[in-house]
Amino acid sequence: MSKSCVVYAPGTVANLVCGFDILGLCLSDPADKMEVRLLHEKKIIIKSADGYPLPENPEENTAGAPIIEMLREINEEVGFEILIHKHIKPGSGIGSSAASAAGAVVAANHLLGNRFPKSDLLRFAMFGEKVASGVKHADNVAPCIYGGITLIRSISPLDVIPLDAPDLFVTIVHPQIEVRTADARAVLRQNVQLKSAIRQWGNIAGLVAGICNKDPDLIGRSLEDVIIEPIRSQLIPGFAEVKEKCRQAGALGGGISGSGPSIFMLSKNEQTAKDVAAVMQNIYHNLGIDFYTYMSQINKEGVKVVSN
Amino acid sequence: MSKSCVVYAPGTVANLVCGFDILGLCLSDPADKMEVRLLHEKKIIIKSADGYPLPENPEENTAGAPIIEMLREINEEVGFEILIHKHIKPGSGIGSSAASAAGAVVAANHLLGNRFPKSDLLRFAMFGEKVASGVKHADNVAPCIYGGITLIRSISPLDVIPLDAPDLFVTIVHPQIEVRTADARAVLRQNVQLKSAIRQWGNIAGLVAGICNKDPDLIGRSLEDVIIEPIRSQLIPGFAEVKEKCRQAGALGGGISGSGPSIFMLSKNEQTAKDVAAVMQNIYHNLGIDFYTYMSQINKEGVKVVSN
Repeated sequence: MSKSCVVYAPGTVANLVCGFDILGLCLSDPADKMEVRLLHEKKIIIKSADGYPLPENPEENTAGAPIIEMLREINEEVGFEILIHKHIKPGSGIGSSAASAAGAVVAANHLLGNRFPKSDLLRFAMFGEKVASGVKHADNVAPCIYGGITLIRSISPLDVIPLDAPDLFVTIVHPQIEVRTADARAVLRQNVQLKSAIRQWGNIAGLVAGICNKDPDLIGRSLEDVIIEPIRSQLIPGFAEVKEKCRQAGALGGGISGSGPSIFMLSKNEQTAKDVAAVMQNIYHNLGIDFYTYMSQINKEGVKVVSN
Repeated sequence: MSKSCVVYAPGTVANLVCGFDILGLCLSDPADKMEVRLLHEKKIIIKSADGYPLPENPEENTAGAPIIEMLREINEEVGFEILIHKHIKPGSGIGSSAASAAGAVVAANHLLGNRFPKSDLLRFAMFGEKVASGVKHADNVAPCIYGGITLIRSISPLDVIPLDAPDLFVTIVHPQIEVRTADARAVLRQNVQLKSAIRQWGNIAGLVAGICNKDPDLIGRSLEDVIIEPIRSQLIPGFAEVKEKCRQAGALGGGISGSGPSIFMLSKNEQTAKDVAAVMQNIYHNLGIDFYTYMSQINKEGVKVVSN
């Protein structure tokens, strides 16, 4: 019987309001379940446990491409069979493709005796994002692998700094509309006013200081995006109402998750996070738009390995 | 005999590289010495101890205007006589006017029994900056009053966050050239590329995380300004050489202090800070430009009151 394990690969929130392209956080729920088995031949088999159509060619698969990169760096006759229970909906804006990529490399590394550090796993997982969106970005794979809140200080050279996350709760609403990442990118302006950029980086500095010093009120005051959100939020019906009423219900603040359509809100405690979920549900119920909501603490662990 | 005190009001570095308009730090040296005496009449007398010409009308004086604002909020027949030993050269870019403003309000508050919190003193001191430069900015008065490193998250409403500064050394070179603040403002572009802004806020986030987590290497990696410095540094002869050779001598990094012409460099220890000073001296000696250098630890205390 060959070695195998089960991993839970969680959803993630990228583009943390003012932290566009640099800050992301890891959720506890939803998470994909992945059953991964070590093979003694150079072969990658990927299967869907629940009918989501997956590309059979590993090179075209968000879980397969990172494994190919990992196997390039070890000179052994090994491979993996990966069965994916997809609980994070593709197109939700909470890192579905990143979870497949991160889960696959963490599981494979576990079965190989943890020979790669997280920085290498991140590097491999980014190839999954390239398959998914054409861009080898780390916005979601970084928080998925490291857990907590991650700062991507620089893309080239890659410099990822895991921050010690505060004990906050995250509520997500995923309205069932499609926001194509390409559209979300296309609406952005290439130039911004210097005075807006300064306001944005004041808020980013406040947000990072609030995270590092575990100051929820500073985090709340800093959750303001004067550059991206005013444009992108127009692609998400109900956004302004969600933001306003969730704050009234006690949320510290929040914004678009990734490039949408999901919206996230941070709260100091579980009861507020539940109240916030009720507010979100009510708004999309009234708008006649189907939705999912999720509530969880910031996940400080990232992908979790559960041995068989 | 009426009450009096002596305060030391230190120089400050505003526009901390990528933290343009939001981050500043407090120096230990140079510092103005101010002798302040409580008067029992509504009168403000300001004198120069060393021949620097000062406006006699308190409304036009950087130390006087903040005191006027403070006195507006107390209904008493009191005033102050202030004798200023000006050790921070006006026009140096290390907060000369801020030191006068901050020193005056801290001293006056001390003589009044410390009835105002630092946030009020900051608010008063900003009127001194308005006298000096026409703009009521907090970039220098905030670190001068709070000490350490201060983040100005927002100007309106004013939200200043004192950060717990790491034990770093600061070396300053003040080349004897004139950079008018108005010129330094005029060369800035009103619009910036979004991709440059993102790179800048990645660095700001890294810098704040490095400060909060006391990680000198992360601070060093984050001391990069892709927006302001490439333009403003052209007003300062020798800038590129200073930056490159100081890094080679072991400095973590640095940049323009305020709007120049002073340049500052951060170092992990005193010996490196001294080596950096020698590098700076050598460069301006060779350029035939007169200069001053200063070396000090980050001053965590700010304006220091020494009772008579």
